Amino acid sequence: MSKSETITQRVESLRTWMRNHGLSAYIFPSTDPHAGEYVPDHWKTREWISGFNGSAGTAVVTLTRAALWTDSRYWLAAEEQTVGTPFEVVRCGRNVVTADELVAWIKNEAAHTGNVVLTVGIDGWCVPQSYATNLASATAAADIVLRTDLEPASALWENRPVLPLSPIEIHPLDYAGEAAQSKMERIRASVNNQGANATIITQLDEIAWTLNLRGSDVHCTPVFVAYLILLPEKAILFIDPKKVTPEVNAYLADIRVGTAPYASIADTLQQSRSFRGLRFLIDPDTTNNAIYDLVSMIGIGVEAECPVSRMKTIKNEAEIRGYRSAMLKDGVAMVKFLRWLEDEMSIGPTNEPITEISVDRKLTALRAEQSGCRDISFDTIAGYGPHAAIVHYEATPETDKRLESHGLLLLDSGAQYVDGTTDITRTIALGSLTDEERRDYTLVLKGHIRLAMAVFPDGTSGTQLDVLARYAMWQDHKNYGHGTGHGVGSYLSVHEGPHQFRMNWMPAPLHANMTVTIEPGIYIADSHGCRTENTMLIVEDGEGWLRLDPLTLCPIDTRPIVQELMTPDEVEYLNNYHVRVREVLLPLLDNEADKKWLIKATEKYGNS
Amino acid sequence: MSKSETITQRVESLRTWMRNHGLSAYIFPSTDPHAGEYVPDHWKTREWISGFNGSAGTAVVTLTRAALWTDSRYWLAAEEQTVGTPFEVVRCGRNVVTADELVAWIKNEAAHTGNVVLTVGIDGWCVPQSYATNLASATAAADIVLRTDLEPASALWENRPVLPLSPIEIHPLDYAGEAAQSKMERIRASVNNQGANATIITQLDEIAWTLNLRGSDVHCTPVFVAYLILLPEKAILFIDPKKVTPEVNAYLADIRVGTAPYASIADTLQQSRSFRGLRFLIDPDTTNNAIYDLVSMIGIGVEAECPVSRMKTIKNEAEIRGYRSAMLKDGVAMVKFLRWLEDEMSIGPTNEPITEISVDRKLTALRAEQSGCRDISFDTIAGYGPHAAIVHYEATPETDKRLESHGLLLLDSGAQYVDGTTDITRTIALGSLTDEERRDYTLVLKGHIRLAMAVFPDGTSGTQLDVLARYAMWQDHKNYGHGTGHGVGSYLSVHEGPHQFRMNWMPAPLHANMTVTIEPGIYIADSHGCRTENTMLIVEDGEGWLRLDPLTLCPIDTRPIVQELMTPDEVEYLNNYHVRVREVLLPLLDNEADKKWLIKATEKYGNS
Repeated sequence: MSKSETITQRVESLRTWMRNHGLSAYIFPSTDPHAGEYVPDHWKTREWISGFNGSAGTAVVTLTRAALWTDSRYWLAAEEQTVGTPFEVVRCGRNVVTADELVAWIKNEAAHTGNVVLTVGIDGWCVPQSYATNLASATAAADIVLRTDLEPASALWENRPVLPLSPIEIHPLDYAGEAAQSKMERIRASVNNQGANATIITQLDEIAWTLNLRGSDVHCTPVFVAYLILLPEKAILFIDPKKVTPEVNAYLADIRVGTAPYASIADTLQQSRSFRGLRFLIDPDTTNNAIYDLVSMIGIGVEAECPVSRMKTIKNEAEIRGYRSAMLKDGVAMVKFLRWLEDEMSIGPTNEPITEISVDRKLTALRAEQSGCRDISFDTIAGYGPHAAIVHYEATPETDKRLESHGLLLLDSGAQYVDGTTDITRTIALGSLTDEERRDYTLVLKGHIRLAMAVFPDGTSGTQLDVLARYAMWQDHKNYGHGTGHGVGSYLSVHEGPHQFRMNWMPAPLHANMTVTIEPGIYIADSHGCRTENTMLIVEDGEGWLRLDPLTLCPIDTRPIVQELMTPDEVEYLNNYHVRVREVLLPLLDNEADKKWLIKATEKYGNS
Repeated sequence: MSKSETITQRVESLRTWMRNHGLSAYIFPSTDPHAGEYVPDHWKTREWISGFNGSAGTAVVTLTRAALWTDSRYWLAAEEQTVGTPFEVVRCGRNVVTADELVAWIKNEAAHTGNVVLTVGIDGWCVPQSYATNLASATAAADIVLRTDLEPASALWENRPVLPLSPIEIHPLDYAGEAAQSKMERIRASVNNQGANATIITQLDEIAWTLNLRGSDVHCTPVFVAYLILLPEKAILFIDPKKVTPEVNAYLADIRVGTAPYASIADTLQQSRSFRGLRFLIDPDTTNNAIYDLVSMIGIGVEAECPVSRMKTIKNEAEIRGYRSAMLKDGVAMVKFLRWLEDEMSIGPTNEPITEISVDRKLTALRAEQSGCRDISFDTIAGYGPHAAIVHYEATPETDKRLESHGLLLLDSGAQYVDGTTDITRTIALGSLTDEERRDYTLVLKGHIRLAMAVFPDGTSGTQLDVLARYAMWQDHKNYGHGTGHGVGSYLSVHEGPHQFRMNWMPAPLHANMTVTIEPGIYIADSHGCRTENTMLIVEDGEGWLRLDPLTLCPIDTRPIVQELMTPDEVEYLNNYHVRVREVLLPLLDNEADKKWLIKATEKYGNS
């Protein structure tokens, strides 16, 4: 059976199930119970029903039609992947289709079929409460009944992937820098200050951070599937018992964290007498609708951002030491890789071809050699020439491009070291460049440096600084459609909120000891792309003032720079950075060729 | 009777009145029925009851205590002005005390007096609906009864200033550029698009803009006290009939605008049958609570920003021509003034002293000589030396300072010409300067130029650009507490929203043909202050891109500049600006000394 036939059959089974349950439509969002960036396969129901595998999209199936909303990144892919299936692709202007748009479409569809009473289903476990609220208002306004207590996948999905079962491990205090008990006390104090006395933490990186535990359940992210309920005197971790080693069990007992099976959370919230009278702090943007409803039966004291969200962004001394150590290892891997690439490219066409995928493999292998390297921190983006203009490009065997001795290679990558997470982008000149490539590369670098040199008041938000990275390229009428930077976790998620550098209003204030990337870019479709990214640490610059200190240690290619476009202070910044990179990485290299390469790559740039 | 005795007596009369009306507290905000920047004397009830004359502040009187909230600009002035009165000054962190803070204070005060049922009054005519809503929730949550239908001033205020009666005049189409009928049709279309079919315009500049009428009821602003109700087929202007000349009456009839006495609006809204079934668009941020309540009896279709707010910010060709003409006249006045000041200062101490007030008088006189000059557009800020560090300084006979041949004079001023409104700040070196004065002056100028040179996508908000004016001074850990820029009306309010350059999030997008000032500053308490301000026009820079073109035409003092701090592109910008200033102003000067001064003041700066 072809893929499209499989999908068609699944939709038919779903419709039978829907009729049996009195449903006129069913909604499949791309979210899971834990509102993280990467969804474990077990919860990829939208991909199961539609065949579309993009990271964002919403599928809706009615008794007669089926539609898939996705944003511009995925319009073409979604259309290709749904050919021959009942799904039509609806081009959506944003990442997530609004509840109003969904409901309007369902209502309109019903008008055609003459259906009078409409009942729409969605799995309350896999949709954040804030979205469920919007959906509830939109359906109510349209006289539609919304059911969040029915879900078809457990009955219909054959060979559904199970949740991962690999054991969790203790994240040593040497890296975490603060004991779990201390973190829990701080969370409790914040919860109490906001008029509540209990909370439930549902985001996996927040649970891992709180308990100083790590796992391997989610792609590129060392977290484990669980819920954590924090009570005034103790805590309960809902987790598959197979993942809890005796050592971890003893550790948890020691810090007064009980465990219960992952799936038992609903019963526990419904039945446990010890919860009576508690007032929960609950975050409606990250807590799923099912949990929210269960907690609201006990008592919601306040709806607010989970306190862990901001706590974890302020890194302590041990974490900062960890980043610095991880960045040294990452810098060594990057230098070895860049030296290797330059050598390989200079050998010429007789050699085994270097492609986007082989570049990814080589770099990953070099990182894996480094001590404490556990994984990559996201899927490497290695885009050569026109592929570099595709912001979320990931090379496949079909698209894999051989590198030639001209143009730009954009390489965005990072790793999970046990002492820190890294995220770096370098754009590398493989040989001759066009004037536009040189100019764009320089404008991006100017933007990077202008923001990197900023001094700003404590509490400034990323939106207030974002323009600094765009100013130079805007003079050329060039821009980029993504944010300028994001936080980076400490051996946790490579994208860590809530602060960002971004044009859209992001009020989260910047403070000392946060991490944040700087990654402006220019992307010219069908031609080239460039981006230069360092991960930075926000540090104090006198009382009440902050500045950005690069954590990332790796040469920035100076060959594409158009010197006339650079100001003296920008050149000085670049040269100072290279002095530092050389100073710290050189002693760590054992190979003469690598040393020679690093010395050359960090030579003083310009005449000034 | 001393001022403090008068105030004490007023408070006593008020308390008697409160007891008679069953009120435990009465709130006096600083707003009037029309939510404008300047409040006519008639509505200055907070000043009447407390004696405090600052532009922002809230007074509350209970049966036993009295308090006055005001922000940091006015802390000292408020304390001085309330000595010997029942008022205690509460130092407030923002311009307007929140409803929650007010209610908490009142509640706490009541706890002392043992009062059980509390009833608090505020004049619904003089408070915007959005603030009244907050007050209503805060009082309800505290079990306090809120009365908005009682006001003491009409009964107790002896010799209360009457509302102004000067006649209104037609703003010629040559200046307005669009007929009132056309504007009203556009407003109606916007109202209809938002699901309503009528609206009430309460902001005075919006009424003046809509009808192409001007008045002289408000300080420095050519508007008149009125309400305008826009119905599907006609409009009604509520205005004192004494202000309507036969000519204006005929004009209004011609454009299908009926008139009714200003005070009759309440009866009209309550009784007119022709309003039945209408659905009003109403702006809760600018409409007062009394009007809001009256309209809600008829029917509110939608709560939204008044469409005029953004329409009036996009200037048409005639208005732009008007600004350019007004700026030439203003530039001539400024050049004559600056030349005069330089001559006077060089004569030395035997001459009649030049002071902050005499500077203001001279400049105002030179502006008054210009054709079409009707008024200044705000109270001139002429601050010499340490006075320049006081952001809202206005010289009084007591503070008036004699200028000496050293240090910086900060001069922020503007005028209302019949073809356009101006707003300009220059900081002038009167002789020798300290290194810090020079450096601060240069950092401010760098900020001004950096923002002035920006190219940015259509629709960018002012918050996204604001940092450009602060970047240079932030490197020195210096900053300023005010916004970087605001819109300027077309022979209307000198501060025109909703767009601004500002750190706080201001989502209003920037578009071509808006005006906006650039006015960064540095203020060193007890030492010096500097600010450099031009009014700019936002112009297209290719499709989808915008840049800023200076409307203001007046030399910027180059003598204080520290050349090493300037980048070549900043120097180039300054020189290009001066070439343009010289080119357009020189032919308009008739006096040889003025010409000579202008040529010198616009000489090419620097070696580059």
